Amino acid sequence: MDEFELIDQIFHRPEGLSSQVAIGIGDDGAVINVTAGKQAVVVMDTLVADVHFLESQSASSIGHRALAVNLSDIAAMGAVPRWATLSLTLSEVNENWLNGFADGFFELAGRHEVALIGGDTTAGPLAACVTVGGEVETEGVLRRAGAQPGDFVYLSGRIGGAAAALSSAEGYADPVLHRALCWPQPRTELGSALGGIANSAVDVSDGLLADLGHVLNASGGLGADLEADSLPLFESAVALLGRRPALELALGGGDDYELCFTTPKNRHQEVLETGHRLGQELFRIGQITERGGCRILGSELDLDAVSAGYQHAWPRSKA
Amino acid sequence: MDEFELIDQIFHRPEGLSSQVAIGIGDDGAVINVTAGKQAVVVMDTLVADVHFLESQSASSIGHRALAVNLSDIAAMGAVPRWATLSLTLSEVNENWLNGFADGFFELAGRHEVALIGGDTTAGPLAACVTVGGEVETEGVLRRAGAQPGDFVYLSGRIGGAAAALSSAEGYADPVLHRALCWPQPRTELGSALGGIANSAVDVSDGLLADLGHVLNASGGLGADLEADSLPLFESAVALLGRRPALELALGGGDDYELCFTTPKNRHQEVLETGHRLGQELFRIGQITERGGCRILGSELDLDAVSAGYQHAWPRSKA
Repeated sequence: MDEFELIDQIFHRPEGLSSQVAIGIGDDGAVINVTAGKQAVVVMDTLVADVHFLESQSASSIGHRALAVNLSDIAAMGAVPRWATLSLTLSEVNENWLNGFADGFFELAGRHEVALIGGDTTAGPLAACVTVGGEVETEGVLRRAGAQPGDFVYLSGRIGGAAAALSSAEGYADPVLHRALCWPQPRTELGSALGGIANSAVDVSDGLLADLGHVLNASGGLGADLEADSLPLFESAVALLGRRPALELALGGGDDYELCFTTPKNRHQEVLETGHRLGQELFRIGQITERGGCRILGSELDLDAVSAGYQHAWPRSKA
Repeated sequence: MDEFELIDQIFHRPEGLSSQVAIGIGDDGAVINVTAGKQAVVVMDTLVADVHFLESQSASSIGHRALAVNLSDIAAMGAVPRWATLSLTLSEVNENWLNGFADGFFELAGRHEVALIGGDTTAGPLAACVTVGGEVETEGVLRRAGAQPGDFVYLSGRIGGAAAALSSAEGYADPVLHRALCWPQPRTELGSALGGIANSAVDVSDGLLADLGHVLNASGGLGADLEADSLPLFESAVALLGRRPALELALGGGDDYELCFTTPKNRHQEVLETGHRLGQELFRIGQITERGGCRILGSELDLDAVSAGYQHAWPRSKA
């Protein structure tokens, strides 16, 4: 068996294919049945060794992450994920590593009913590129544009944990922070449930200030007043680093993959009920303002410094 | 303007978007209108520097190739391409190089009415990963499986040119061979026209013996008798290398991206007319046999040696 047969064998899992997949891996392309009346959503994200993950990380957490960051984008669009393609570039063929990667990838894919339908493997510096396709009803699409002054701003979970794990060896060793960094949980159920409730949504991959900033810009140059005391920090991060640094990491650090979304005030109850129904803790963190720019009420942080300081924190800190 | 704004500016070309694209670049994902009654086809291929292209190659030919190899897979499925996503991993941000890459990519995309709807850019060793989506009617899907004993075997163009360009400096300098290697032309019009006519199809990326072998295996272990004199070689390759080496490269070398397809004998006239209508030269090269394995009638080549000798010829020869 040559190396490419080995790889085919590891990634060819027909049992994971839904009835939506007419032709999966093994031809020149995959063929998918589309659902009448829905739109297709497509996202793509690449992870490069020593830039988006550490080669020392467990292979299964890399496989998990490669899919998770894409599912998070699907969630931020309000869609339900259906299929994925995976392009793996490998500097060497290590069967143990490949099995670990596949375990992490397929465990998450199975939980979200996502079928791996194709891709390729090439020789070269270690990297994984994933494309995910999903479906959404037109009225359920969540855009970055759409926030309105007066809207409440929500987060789907705690933030700053991944950045805290990257900030020190103690952070990386803390099990809760390590999990936030290496095993991010995409909020796809919540994302698709928010269609018709939320005005706008984004996933927090680059940091809350940066990603909420995309929403504010796309919504016509609005602003947001966030309450420092309402920002959901990781207790471990506060215990390890102190409150102010933990708050800075929550605002400027990325990689948490929580959803940040806005809704009109009068839908607050509906938001809470949606969270309850899904068993998903939700945090109201502030309000959209007509005046542009973000303010963090109850803190004296220099937000420009916070944003600038953590841009590309993950790549540069370990590369 | 930071480097990522630069890249966004280069690749964000809303004028190229069709009415099928509801949301293109700039949100967490793209949203596409699907056509009722059609199936979606998805393909993905990655090009890594020094493995699938030379860094010394023109940037526009790399951009062209990154899309072309994917369009070729779409053609081999009988589909019409609609959209593409592009993930570019860049070791440095060179505006000239990026503009060249984008020119090559968008020139081909424009000719095939393919919209770039998303993707990402990351720092790391130079590579381009492209996913292309297309549409096809169920009865127009071309699979590798489906060839029958007695079928005629066709090629959509000359083969062995790309391998001849890689075989020597003279080959690389020859304008016709250089074009075959660096500017492959995906046969998407032909592919979608063959739906309902061809029994099976594959694109010749790994070499005729290897790719036709996929068809023969997928079709239940059939064979093929090809006529050496009917194989369409490049005149420049024959002149440069001699007939027998040119024939070996045509059989074992890859990267020509012509379609190889089979049809029942009684559809020969229809195949010719399809080629005429599209201005696409077609070559009948042999016939499917019940007995397994390929034979090249009128030659004394050792086919196992030919196949083995050229496996991964492009990566290894220059890496």
